[in-house]
Amino acid sequence: MKISGYNFINGERSGENPSTLNSFDAHTGAALKWTFHPASRKEAEAACQAAAQAFAAYQATSPAQRATFLETIADEIDALDDDFIQLVMRETALAEGRIRGERARTSGQMRLFATVLRRGDFLGARIDQALPDRQPLPRPDLRQVKRGVGPVAVFGASNFPLAFSTAGGDTAAALAAGCPVVMKAHSGHMATAECVAQAICNAVQRCGMPAGVFNMIYGSGIGEVLVRHPAIQAVGFTGSLKGGRALCDMAAARPCPIPVFAEMSSINPMIILPAALKSRGEKIAADLVASVALGCGQFCTNPGLFIGIRSPEFSQLLQQMASHLAQSPAQTMLNRDVLRSYEKGLNHLHLHAGLTHLAGKLQQGSQAYPQLFKASARMLVSGDPLLQEEVFGPVTIAVEVEDQYELEQALSGLRGQLTASLLADGEDLQQFANLVPLLEQKVGRLLLNSYPTGVEVSDAMVHGGPYPATSDVRGTSVGTLAIDRFLRPICYQDYPQSLLPDSLKDANPWQLRRLVNGQWSEGTL
Amino acid sequence: MKISGYNFINGERSGENPSTLNSFDAHTGAALKWTFHPASRKEAEAACQAAAQAFAAYQATSPAQRATFLETIADEIDALDDDFIQLVMRETALAEGRIRGERARTSGQMRLFATVLRRGDFLGARIDQALPDRQPLPRPDLRQVKRGVGPVAVFGASNFPLAFSTAGGDTAAALAAGCPVVMKAHSGHMATAECVAQAICNAVQRCGMPAGVFNMIYGSGIGEVLVRHPAIQAVGFTGSLKGGRALCDMAAARPCPIPVFAEMSSINPMIILPAALKSRGEKIAADLVASVALGCGQFCTNPGLFIGIRSPEFSQLLQQMASHLAQSPAQTMLNRDVLRSYEKGLNHLHLHAGLTHLAGKLQQGSQAYPQLFKASARMLVSGDPLLQEEVFGPVTIAVEVEDQYELEQALSGLRGQLTASLLADGEDLQQFANLVPLLEQKVGRLLLNSYPTGVEVSDAMVHGGPYPATSDVRGTSVGTLAIDRFLRPICYQDYPQSLLPDSLKDANPWQLRRLVNGQWSEGTL
Repeated sequence: MKISGYNFINGERSGENPSTLNSFDAHTGAALKWTFHPASRKEAEAACQAAAQAFAAYQATSPAQRATFLETIADEIDALDDDFIQLVMRETALAEGRIRGERARTSGQMRLFATVLRRGDFLGARIDQALPDRQPLPRPDLRQVKRGVGPVAVFGASNFPLAFSTAGGDTAAALAAGCPVVMKAHSGHMATAECVAQAICNAVQRCGMPAGVFNMIYGSGIGEVLVRHPAIQAVGFTGSLKGGRALCDMAAARPCPIPVFAEMSSINPMIILPAALKSRGEKIAADLVASVALGCGQFCTNPGLFIGIRSPEFSQLLQQMASHLAQSPAQTMLNRDVLRSYEKGLNHLHLHAGLTHLAGKLQQGSQAYPQLFKASARMLVSGDPLLQEEVFGPVTIAVEVEDQYELEQALSGLRGQLTASLLADGEDLQQFANLVPLLEQKVGRLLLNSYPTGVEVSDAMVHGGPYPATSDVRGTSVGTLAIDRFLRPICYQDYPQSLLPDSLKDANPWQLRRLVNGQWSEGTL
Repeated sequence: MKISGYNFINGERSGENPSTLNSFDAHTGAALKWTFHPASRKEAEAACQAAAQAFAAYQATSPAQRATFLETIADEIDALDDDFIQLVMRETALAEGRIRGERARTSGQMRLFATVLRRGDFLGARIDQALPDRQPLPRPDLRQVKRGVGPVAVFGASNFPLAFSTAGGDTAAALAAGCPVVMKAHSGHMATAECVAQAICNAVQRCGMPAGVFNMIYGSGIGEVLVRHPAIQAVGFTGSLKGGRALCDMAAARPCPIPVFAEMSSINPMIILPAALKSRGEKIAADLVASVALGCGQFCTNPGLFIGIRSPEFSQLLQQMASHLAQSPAQTMLNRDVLRSYEKGLNHLHLHAGLTHLAGKLQQGSQAYPQLFKASARMLVSGDPLLQEEVFGPVTIAVEVEDQYELEQALSGLRGQLTASLLADGEDLQQFANLVPLLEQKVGRLLLNSYPTGVEVSDAMVHGGPYPATSDVRGTSVGTLAIDRFLRPICYQDYPQSLLPDSLKDANPWQLRRLVNGQWSEGTL
């Protein structure tokens, strides 16, 4: 494994800064042997300029060329060897199976965007032909297509070192849209980031793409330079509410404001309805604890809150969950900062008078113990912020409501979420059908009888939702619709065939389905 | 004509505020006989709450029901009588033909959005069916559709009292998306706004829509209450850069930030290329002056700047334009504020050392005289802000460049624009083809041999562009794509048929074309 620790700028490696950063073994906390040069301001700016310079040439590539490029990236990522897997395990403490699965997800995501590019509907081609004889005024020839917004800055997530990082969903969506990327490597897995960045750069070379189409810098605090740089036209971010909001505020204050797509904070409520609880409470207790503890609770979609109606069955559920939790082993978190933040979050829960600690070993040492708390429904109804703030890790809070009315009140008090899940039997769905329109206003994804952890990468997925789940409810950061965040429409009026993009030519060389004079058409004009 | 001057809140009329505002005769400056009650903070909040309350019921209407609603609004607007036309003429000084045309545009826009609703593709329905046997993990059933973001606050424009105001493009797009509207009536045409609001309210009643689906308030400064209100989920605005940016900053600073779609400032450069200038310079001089003076220059797409390469033909063009301008009559502007702002803008141009005044009568009195200035190319290359700021009114600035290289430099210095137009013959297009990718990065609409004034309402139109032309390059405020600004995706995982929206049911009752397992399909499942 050759790790140089240099920044990736315009196809070259650069490490001006004499000071270095270390990557750490997530299990032992010991520094790994590699060092990384945090980018200087000059290097960060050079990365943005390289992306800006690459934009015109990259934007001019055909969707088919970009599809091949993404597939080549996928191949390069799949070709990373066992040493790479070991390295990711050391940097993140994630299990081998998880990392192999995440790698397949990451390369699969690139290939899925390649199918989007080949399908071509993301272009949204529309043609209104001229009507020279229209009264009182003729209509000009108007043709619309979508193109990339320009260079995109991407901030990798700690919890998905592959699928939400260097070659993750934001990068894949931006590259698919024809937007060069400037990546800020997450400080929690810099060696992993370097290997993946090298894989992308190999694909850039193999496909003859402009060198500045992908750049990556190391450092902490240096991401601000990217967000403020005039060349950057959009930002993708996955992380904390505090961090995401800071980037949003920064981007909004620019002389030319730009959009930030930040996926931030969600407690992913689960609503356990009476008939389901009665018919399969035992299984729910086991499954819910498994979902909470899965991957040490380090998922954006971790179920941090669940709600049930007061009943002997709900009390029993809590008891059963408590005993499952007692058997759940402590797990190593992604890094020491994440563990400290988990401990701090638990302390806040312990100290709040409205919360009762139901189960979980005393949190101490170098690993995280899963925990179960209980809160009064009033805390949700009144919008108590503590209940709404994601504690990143294997903890969940039970909320017991009196009746259906209080359940609705409690759900109304929720902030925006990535997901909301109903555990419900047929009769529940009849009695509680009015919860659905309520939840539709609160979340990006509604689940029935399944657990929110596990986010499929597909055309229909929405990994988004109202603030503070994300900074822009109109986007998704998983699934193929993610490309839309980085596209903008442009219109050509009375342009000759020779100057029109291929997508809009009469001959329809890409065989697109286009909206022509208000009708969908796959043909030529 | 019955004008009460009361705010429209939840289907009722309200005028708590004892103080009143006047509307004025645009020609004489005299107060008209009607008075208007500026909304109190309580009334503004009540309007937002009414919209919030109407949202669930309105969102639950089918696209076909909303289409009928929009068509009924169109019918009500078309039914406004000659007194109404006279009233708009008095409030805005716009000519009768223009107002009749704008009314047809406004009702036509509503009917065009009705066709979008009936076509159904705006819903973006996507289905990924369950793959229970997939290895290593099964795939759940995932279904995605777009829905309205929630209540939208709309700020009407002064220069289009109908097409960009009460029942204008933003209102039509929001209502089509299933979003209730809270309108802030423009103070320049409050009586016009009241008549149109009444037409919308008649349609609300005739169609049995929830009363709070449309609300309108009067007042100045009160718009802030709308933008900051937690119920409001997006903002549409057409107006000045200063006003639009203030709303953007306000929306970004909310506890839950929301998007603002502000169409603000554009000088709409025209590039006059040598062969075209040689072959038809005389016609260009006449047409360009006509475009600059059209409607007293009060269009967002008014050509405020044109560029040519130094040549005897370009000098001649300027002379010919000067003589056309001398024959262009003064015109009455929309109101006294607009005239004052035009005078102020002209003063800045007169005082700048880099600009020469080429033609135009001394600006004085109650009407606006068209004006022609000339600037050095260096001002554009160096990004002099004065040259980039829209002076709203019948004025344009000629920029003479030395050669093709300086032309490219000058265009690179331009800020974001709504439009850029090339006046070019065949040989120009060969020689200057590289201007196109440069302009693509700067604008929302590229025109060839036509003038930017005159914005077609159609599927392919883009009335948008990079900042400061608009606050979000990903949107358009004219044309059917405008609906996308007010939509967000939502995903249903493993939901039963009975709880899915009709758009996502197996039976495909609306006969939508849907993306099913990565393939487009019009059928049932």
